[in-house]
Amino acid sequence: MIAQKAYPAEPWQVRETALDLGVLAQSESVFALSNGHIGLRANLDEGEPHALPGTYLNSVYEERPLPYAEAGYGYPPSGQTVINVANGKLIRLLVNDEPFDVRYGRLRRHERILDLRAGVLRRDCEWTSPAGVTVQVNSTRLVSFVYRSIAAIEYQVRAVSDPIQVVLQSELVANEQLPPMSGDPRAAAVLEAPLQAELHERNGAGVVLIHQTRRSGRRTGAGMTHIVDCDSTWTADVYASEDVGRYMVTARLQPGETLRLVKLLAYGWSSQRSLPAIRAQVEAALTAARASGWEWLVAAQRDYLDDFWRRADVELDGDDEVQQAVRFALFHVLQASARAERRPIAAKGLTGTGYDGHAFWDTETFVLPVLTYTAPAAAADALRWRHMIIPAAKERARQLGLKGTAFPWRTITGQECSAYWPAGTAAFHINADIADAVIRQLWATQDDEFAMEAGVELLVETARLWMSLGGLDADGRFHIDGVTGPDEYSALADNNVYTNLMAQRNLRGAAAAAERYRARAAHFGVSPEEIARWRAAADGVVVVYDERLGVHPQSENFTKHAPWDFANTPPQGYPLLLHYPYFQLYRKQVVKQSDLVLAMHLRGDAFTPEQKLRNFDYYEGLTVRDSSLSACTQAVVAAEVNHLDLAYAYLGEAALMDLGDLEQNTRDGVHIASLAGAWLAVVAGLGGMRDYNEVLHFAPHLAGPLRRLRFAMTWRGRRLRVEVNAETATYELLDGEAVDLVHEGERLTVKPGQPVSMPVRAVPELPTPHQPPGREPHGRR
Amino acid sequence: MIAQKAYPAEPWQVRETALDLGVLAQSESVFALSNGHIGLRANLDEGEPHALPGTYLNSVYEERPLPYAEAGYGYPPSGQTVINVANGKLIRLLVNDEPFDVRYGRLRRHERILDLRAGVLRRDCEWTSPAGVTVQVNSTRLVSFVYRSIAAIEYQVRAVSDPIQVVLQSELVANEQLPPMSGDPRAAAVLEAPLQAELHERNGAGVVLIHQTRRSGRRTGAGMTHIVDCDSTWTADVYASEDVGRYMVTARLQPGETLRLVKLLAYGWSSQRSLPAIRAQVEAALTAARASGWEWLVAAQRDYLDDFWRRADVELDGDDEVQQAVRFALFHVLQASARAERRPIAAKGLTGTGYDGHAFWDTETFVLPVLTYTAPAAAADALRWRHMIIPAAKERARQLGLKGTAFPWRTITGQECSAYWPAGTAAFHINADIADAVIRQLWATQDDEFAMEAGVELLVETARLWMSLGGLDADGRFHIDGVTGPDEYSALADNNVYTNLMAQRNLRGAAAAAERYRARAAHFGVSPEEIARWRAAADGVVVVYDERLGVHPQSENFTKHAPWDFANTPPQGYPLLLHYPYFQLYRKQVVKQSDLVLAMHLRGDAFTPEQKLRNFDYYEGLTVRDSSLSACTQAVVAAEVNHLDLAYAYLGEAALMDLGDLEQNTRDGVHIASLAGAWLAVVAGLGGMRDYNEVLHFAPHLAGPLRRLRFAMTWRGRRLRVEVNAETATYELLDGEAVDLVHEGERLTVKPGQPVSMPVRAVPELPTPHQPPGREPHGRR
Repeated sequence: MIAQKAYPAEPWQVRETALDLGVLAQSESVFALSNGHIGLRANLDEGEPHALPGTYLNSVYEERPLPYAEAGYGYPPSGQTVINVANGKLIRLLVNDEPFDVRYGRLRRHERILDLRAGVLRRDCEWTSPAGVTVQVNSTRLVSFVYRSIAAIEYQVRAVSDPIQVVLQSELVANEQLPPMSGDPRAAAVLEAPLQAELHERNGAGVVLIHQTRRSGRRTGAGMTHIVDCDSTWTADVYASEDVGRYMVTARLQPGETLRLVKLLAYGWSSQRSLPAIRAQVEAALTAARASGWEWLVAAQRDYLDDFWRRADVELDGDDEVQQAVRFALFHVLQASARAERRPIAAKGLTGTGYDGHAFWDTETFVLPVLTYTAPAAAADALRWRHMIIPAAKERARQLGLKGTAFPWRTITGQECSAYWPAGTAAFHINADIADAVIRQLWATQDDEFAMEAGVELLVETARLWMSLGGLDADGRFHIDGVTGPDEYSALADNNVYTNLMAQRNLRGAAAAAERYRARAAHFGVSPEEIARWRAAADGVVVVYDERLGVHPQSENFTKHAPWDFANTPPQGYPLLLHYPYFQLYRKQVVKQSDLVLAMHLRGDAFTPEQKLRNFDYYEGLTVRDSSLSACTQAVVAAEVNHLDLAYAYLGEAALMDLGDLEQNTRDGVHIASLAGAWLAVVAGLGGMRDYNEVLHFAPHLAGPLRRLRFAMTWRGRRLRVEVNAETATYELLDGEAVDLVHEGERLTVKPGQPVSMPVRAVPELPTPHQPPGREPHGRR
Repeated sequence: MIAQKAYPAEPWQVRETALDLGVLAQSESVFALSNGHIGLRANLDEGEPHALPGTYLNSVYEERPLPYAEAGYGYPPSGQTVINVANGKLIRLLVNDEPFDVRYGRLRRHERILDLRAGVLRRDCEWTSPAGVTVQVNSTRLVSFVYRSIAAIEYQVRAVSDPIQVVLQSELVANEQLPPMSGDPRAAAVLEAPLQAELHERNGAGVVLIHQTRRSGRRTGAGMTHIVDCDSTWTADVYASEDVGRYMVTARLQPGETLRLVKLLAYGWSSQRSLPAIRAQVEAALTAARASGWEWLVAAQRDYLDDFWRRADVELDGDDEVQQAVRFALFHVLQASARAERRPIAAKGLTGTGYDGHAFWDTETFVLPVLTYTAPAAAADALRWRHMIIPAAKERARQLGLKGTAFPWRTITGQECSAYWPAGTAAFHINADIADAVIRQLWATQDDEFAMEAGVELLVETARLWMSLGGLDADGRFHIDGVTGPDEYSALADNNVYTNLMAQRNLRGAAAAAERYRARAAHFGVSPEEIARWRAAADGVVVVYDERLGVHPQSENFTKHAPWDFANTPPQGYPLLLHYPYFQLYRKQVVKQSDLVLAMHLRGDAFTPEQKLRNFDYYEGLTVRDSSLSACTQAVVAAEVNHLDLAYAYLGEAALMDLGDLEQNTRDGVHIASLAGAWLAVVAGLGGMRDYNEVLHFAPHLAGPLRRLRFAMTWRGRRLRVEVNAETATYELLDGEAVDLVHEGERLTVKPGQPVSMPVRAVPELPTPHQPPGREPHGRR
């Protein structure tokens, strides 16, 4: 875990005050920069020391065999793993022939700042070489939100103590040696040097390298060019070979003199376009970036983010630490998605290789609900990616004996990459999760073009899946048997409540869309009879209930199972899946992550307030949160059922997941969905925002040390702001026409220039629900 | 499949009248010889052509890595695969410098006979070489039941048309090239040349080779020696290298003259003993065999089998084909087990590499019920093997968080080798199956020594497993959740009826044994309180029942699932597991192999006759018999519920499994359990024998074309004979004291020399139950 108070609680930045090599891997993820297309882990400019060098391009992956000791029908034969493309971050410094390396000499000062408003990573350090020469090094790095293909680094070295000869070696390196990523030697072999060189070319002050992946046929181009500015004379040289481009500048600096290098990087890839086309694309991007210049790129980055924060900022007065964490969270969510543009938003964004770079259901269930209200175009693009992979999802459905689409549990390009079907293929809820995101997007944006292009087809084909997965019995009850819900400590159960209720929403959403976009639906063969069948199935969906306990079993028979023996599970027994067999987990009452509780968030309309409270308290005693996707949902529902302190504690856990390295795997990349969940914990939790009705609902309340809560969101072209203090909630329209909202069940109209204030509800005293021993919300650092 | 009428229906032999290279692999299995210690596939003497050369020693295996694309806690890291040891069957013949090869020249006659009374494989052929020279070749091969380490071949070549020069090259070859056995290249690499040479030595007219396996540390010794007899002068030479021993004889034969070679083979192995010890063991065995001579070995083999058939023969007058098949079945069951001696009886015996040479639950559930009544010492030895692996089974239980023993689903030496836990580890019923075999053995033999040595501990530790696997609820009901029953088209279900009832038997059997062998049980820490807890759990065992349908669901919720869409499953869709995902199989009503029906056989005391009939008919419509373990059980219960024609059809299917290659995988070895099931189908099916009561019960009836049925069995030291014709069943005591039996519910006493005849029951007219379309019992060839 990252040490206590690693980062001072500052509202708009994350600042590392000293370099701790023990948490280098974590800081490489925390300070990673990305625009959703390019991702740069925060490796030091000089390359070493490093934990995991990482430069990623969305959807550039390599295929690798998936081995099975006992294979079964329909098991995917190969998987996809994100690969490290040519590393353009490298700027090596030699001071009088001694390489700048923080492990040698004396690091007098080292500070890194992730500036959440400027969208840059700054580094400032002062180093005395083993020979006793002191230099000051500053760098600023950005991955442009404005120019999707461009990253840039401004690097300055200043002589402090003595006259020095400096050499900067700015590099572009393909097939870097990496620590092993897989325990399977065959897979490791495939991933060892995944890039085959196709072209290397010097080009003025830079180099272009073109490579192709061996199996997946991804052609990637990377280019760099440089602008030098120096207080004294300098000379430069360029070198290129198959896997290495190098630009070298040397100068002699007197104390106080500076050598400044601006490095512009361009990346492009395609699975179809030719080598000349990729080369031209990279060179054009470099030319544009050079013409724009460093200062313009920095200013444009700031403008882009100013606009984002206007639409999306969350203010939490009274808790600087959570304030910082929530902004950090939103920043990473934006980085993962801003320019993904019909490519997946992976679980780790482009900040590391965790989960092989795959996208899962978390994108639709946790990330898109944030984007729909803060960056709706990015949400639409993510769903357009799902639309693009419909052919693969249809083929998978056909292979499984199903109709419509069976979206992959984990993938980069649409092929199922899950090698353990009970917690992969069987988690069919991902299809309803996608549909839910489509329904939300349509409802929140009223974007007919998106509907026509992608939304209707996604709804129709996912609805068809459910019709083939489930079955109506003689009593008109619609059953869905043998599936796995969000909680991966159960599997292959009948009538998972979450799955059934989300399928119901999917079927009704498809019916509504097919009626609204009649011609488009007809194009996909939807008839009035089919719509009627969807509605009948939705109306018949089974929702199991345990009358004896007065709670909903998360699936049939769940509440009949023995509870997990929490009393005899030691702290080091968590996460349970690493210390106990699936066999034991599946047949006991123990919950990895919110399942029924998530159903109560997303399908709150299907539960009474009394049920919500009873269910929440019941599952709280069973939920161990071995998944980072749990705390935010527990925050949302805890707030609804008036466990406000608990809600606040879970909000903190979700927000601090990566700044505190709470799951001890931030090294592999940040947890994009948990970070998105921090926004949900604030807006849907404390704000009580619900979006499954005709209008937006709110039921806001402060919690913890908060004195004031304020957040903005976009809905149907309007920008709304909600401000909450101890007594009142105020709704204000910042842009757009008058709008109806619901506050604590009461409908009200908010007009331009006329904020409406409403009283905050009184909260009853409730007994505190308990978590399994040792599994309380993570204590704040 | 093996062609129609490949083998004429002869009562005491299986005769192949011509060599069909298209079914070479199947015939290598069908004609394989074994004594449970050594196994020789029926490869041609000259080695080629072959499908799979195979020489096996029980428990000589190699470890290989088990790969997982997504591993989980408790997954076994490595597996065990039976390996081909030094092949001593090879006798190559050169006729005037032309190798005898059935693919060249002209094969004028080729007949092979497996003689079920003599226990030898005879081959008789006449071949004209491409150069037009005709020779007659005869060989007789045996694996001795009497000398466990010895196999022998008598090989004769006779000049027919011309004077010839013949050379016989008798070989012993280690690390033969084999067709690939695994799709995993790492595993294939491990298995490619598994034997490391330690010693090769010429020894008179023979050679000894000692090898050791690389990972599993099995030291194996193989030796050969020869006796030559010739109508003319001959010379011989011996050669030995690391992997090859060769003895060459040459002679010049005039037409009508014969060269005869007797080849004696000895095998031994150990994981502990030294190289000199193994060498000495092999040489001693060769010396003994040489001293005994070929004729003595043949005579002793005959004596051994005469004794067996006296105890075990089944006579079926009126159906020569099934008569032959049932004797063939019993012969292979004996071959798999006779001299296994505290080593496993594998699913394929030692006839092929199917299932990696592993033993499963089938041994206890199908094979031991035959051996207990026909070769009780072999049954006891097989259970002593289970007793030997208790330490590994306890360690596995501990790893899974359980008490007592968790016997491996598949193994050679006790370590779990199953790489797919839902159909492996989760099939805990294997523990009750072992207990059931122990209970049966104790009941049928009253062998206190066996009880003290192995039986009590096996019962106690398996009972402890169930106590930790199941749980008593507040109402005193004992639940076992999340396990897989015998039917592998369902998995991870709650309260599988078979599992629960067998666990009940296990708990009660353990309680009874602990009370009978009080001191022994106390040695394992069993207290009266523990026994009381076993009894309480047994009394509380849940047996689910579907009141609406009036049948037992095989597990909870089973009958609520949608039935499989049989109408839309084409014939080539079977076996379903190769064409449909587990996901679909598990959540539908479709049964791979008897599960609830097996419970009705083994725990018939837990069902009423009406329930049996309704359940049988219900499951008949769902059972596709994609497992060879199904037909025999369906035969047994069909007979009980008076579906006699159906019972007879299933008896035929079980018996002809390998002679007809009904599952199209006899190439990998014969189906020992299904073959044992043929005996069960006769004795427990047509004979109505049940052994879960105080005395043996019978309810015999003829079926099909049978005019008379007669079988012998051993019970408590007595040899009984049951003879059935259309009107009467006659019980006769061939050896031993008077005994009580039950015939059709009526108790009777059979005294020496006083056979008792009873009337056969009248059978009511019943509607015929139906199988899924296309899954009717295999039509007789």
